[in-house]
Amino acid sequence: MRAVKLYGARDVRVEDVPMPTIREDGDAIVRLAAACVCGSDLWAYRGIDPITTPVTVGHEYCGVVQEVGPSVTSVRPGDFVVGSFFASDGTCEICRSGYPSGCVDRRGMGEENCQAEYLRVPLADGTLVATPGMPDEDLVPHLLAASDVLGTGWFAAKAAGVGPGKTVAVVGDGAVGLLGVLAAKELGAERIIAMSRHEPRQKLAVEFGATDIVTERGDEGVARIRDLTDGLGVHSTLEAVGTQESMMQAIRSTRRGGHVGFVGVLHGVELPGRDLFFSHVHLHGGPAPVRAYLPDLIERIVSRRIRPGRVFDLELPFDQAAEAYAAMDERRAIKALLRF
Amino acid sequence: MRAVKLYGARDVRVEDVPMPTIREDGDAIVRLAAACVCGSDLWAYRGIDPITTPVTVGHEYCGVVQEVGPSVTSVRPGDFVVGSFFASDGTCEICRSGYPSGCVDRRGMGEENCQAEYLRVPLADGTLVATPGMPDEDLVPHLLAASDVLGTGWFAAKAAGVGPGKTVAVVGDGAVGLLGVLAAKELGAERIIAMSRHEPRQKLAVEFGATDIVTERGDEGVARIRDLTDGLGVHSTLEAVGTQESMMQAIRSTRRGGHVGFVGVLHGVELPGRDLFFSHVHLHGGPAPVRAYLPDLIERIVSRRIRPGRVFDLELPFDQAAEAYAAMDERRAIKALLRF
Repeated sequence: MRAVKLYGARDVRVEDVPMPTIREDGDAIVRLAAACVCGSDLWAYRGIDPITTPVTVGHEYCGVVQEVGPSVTSVRPGDFVVGSFFASDGTCEICRSGYPSGCVDRRGMGEENCQAEYLRVPLADGTLVATPGMPDEDLVPHLLAASDVLGTGWFAAKAAGVGPGKTVAVVGDGAVGLLGVLAAKELGAERIIAMSRHEPRQKLAVEFGATDIVTERGDEGVARIRDLTDGLGVHSTLEAVGTQESMMQAIRSTRRGGHVGFVGVLHGVELPGRDLFFSHVHLHGGPAPVRAYLPDLIERIVSRRIRPGRVFDLELPFDQAAEAYAAMDERRAIKALLRF
Repeated sequence: MRAVKLYGARDVRVEDVPMPTIREDGDAIVRLAAACVCGSDLWAYRGIDPITTPVTVGHEYCGVVQEVGPSVTSVRPGDFVVGSFFASDGTCEICRSGYPSGCVDRRGMGEENCQAEYLRVPLADGTLVATPGMPDEDLVPHLLAASDVLGTGWFAAKAAGVGPGKTVAVVGDGAVGLLGVLAAKELGAERIIAMSRHEPRQKLAVEFGATDIVTERGDEGVARIRDLTDGLGVHSTLEAVGTQESMMQAIRSTRRGGHVGFVGVLHGVELPGRDLFFSHVHLHGGPAPVRAYLPDLIERIVSRRIRPGRVFDLELPFDQAAEAYAAMDERRAIKALLRF
């Protein structure tokens, strides 16, 4: 089968690799419906997370179960399934508390081959969620988005305490930030301020529910947010970038007693304790517990209430994976979908 | 009247100063029932927070109202009152959301003279809470503790999500940490692990509700906490120190999805973003919104349900304030009470 591998900075190749097989009793083999590139894949693509040997990339997936190991009971061959970027057992105390991405036995799906035609999913019972029947073909991008970027935006909103009546700011206009806007809207936010200076992304933010657009960044961005909120700052800020500047912008845009949900994988960030102390914000984030949200998210997608797959603004044949990476790296695309 | 002033590192003097007067319509003048030294006063005492001119110290107070400004309606002369270390208007959106210590018009009481015989309290209506009638004399230390250390320990517990069934760790065995133990007990925690290596403090922790004592610190302390919690870490950690080591110990002692409430004023702390991201903890803290808790805390004290004033293990005449500071600095006393 074909799979994407990253050989080094900006060196993406599609090559033939062996088919995955059942290795543990709880495994499932899934024929993927499509593949996609994540913003977090770009850290390695850009050489910021250095790599020394060819590595698998990607960690988002949905498709049809081909085969299951002997202990798997919750999905069976023929089911269309969506999973999260962390496989999780679904039974440990951390999973049961709502944090499957913190599962004591979690497995990073980045170590499997998610940008490939077939995928081995360990801990299938705790990881995969089947859709009700076979979804229409046009729903595939939306279901694929649920696997990470929607689930991650959703977690950012939950971690930021978004709810009815809340004023929300979203830092970051990548797929996760934009779907954070959608999540905030779905969770009842009254006002949603998207921070973006790119017109196509601004438009999508508005389509997803943004009520205001702020183009300024850093100190000016914070000042603009304060102008819009009687000087107080917003109740809830979603941080979907992961840099020092974006984290501080998020914290400083939030009112005392408010919440910051951060989901951009932090790179080189050091939070100054004193600023955090006097900011009085709640801070919560990390790898999103997507699996916990999947039943709800799938229901919203198959009922055609939400269209998170709108973040895919570039669709390419699988063999053109390198171009998909380049387009995202150069911000010509928000998110690229690869069709087999 | 007499007041304590700090002239420089380890240079505490009691001197005569003018009586405070009503300066704003919302002020009250309070004759203090006793005074006390706070652990956070030691940062300046030790020269870590450097000072160049003589400064007022202390920020905890309770006593009898002598006089009120023309706009004050909620307290009157003769009332016994307790207030918080931040004066707050009680009416702004931040106050109403439960964060009076983040009030848009907050005034640090450290700028008034709280280690003195009389005190000016600005924004009296939003700041002071009257006890039901004149409390018995023996309740004074408990009510004085409510002004900061109890309220701060209470906030640490609330910020750490303490509730029935929770397993809690407390980092720091000063007055705030010990009263964090008491707060955790009152809020229904099932198991409370106090981290302390000082026998008198361990004893008080147990009296306040600690079920386990851990004497190890740093990596060993974290390992011990994990041993006690099936390898997961606790649900809730209260951080009441404010150093890099104590913050990291708190974060690493907490399970994924758990909560850290931090109330030690952070000094020189830089939180590594990546560790925070993958820790999956909720982080909340800052200056405690004590005013919001005072009605509840006063009720628990005057009904003699709790005895937070037990943290005062040294009582001295006011003129011996210098010895009170020295005793706390050298950890000969947990907390010192000064009698006029």
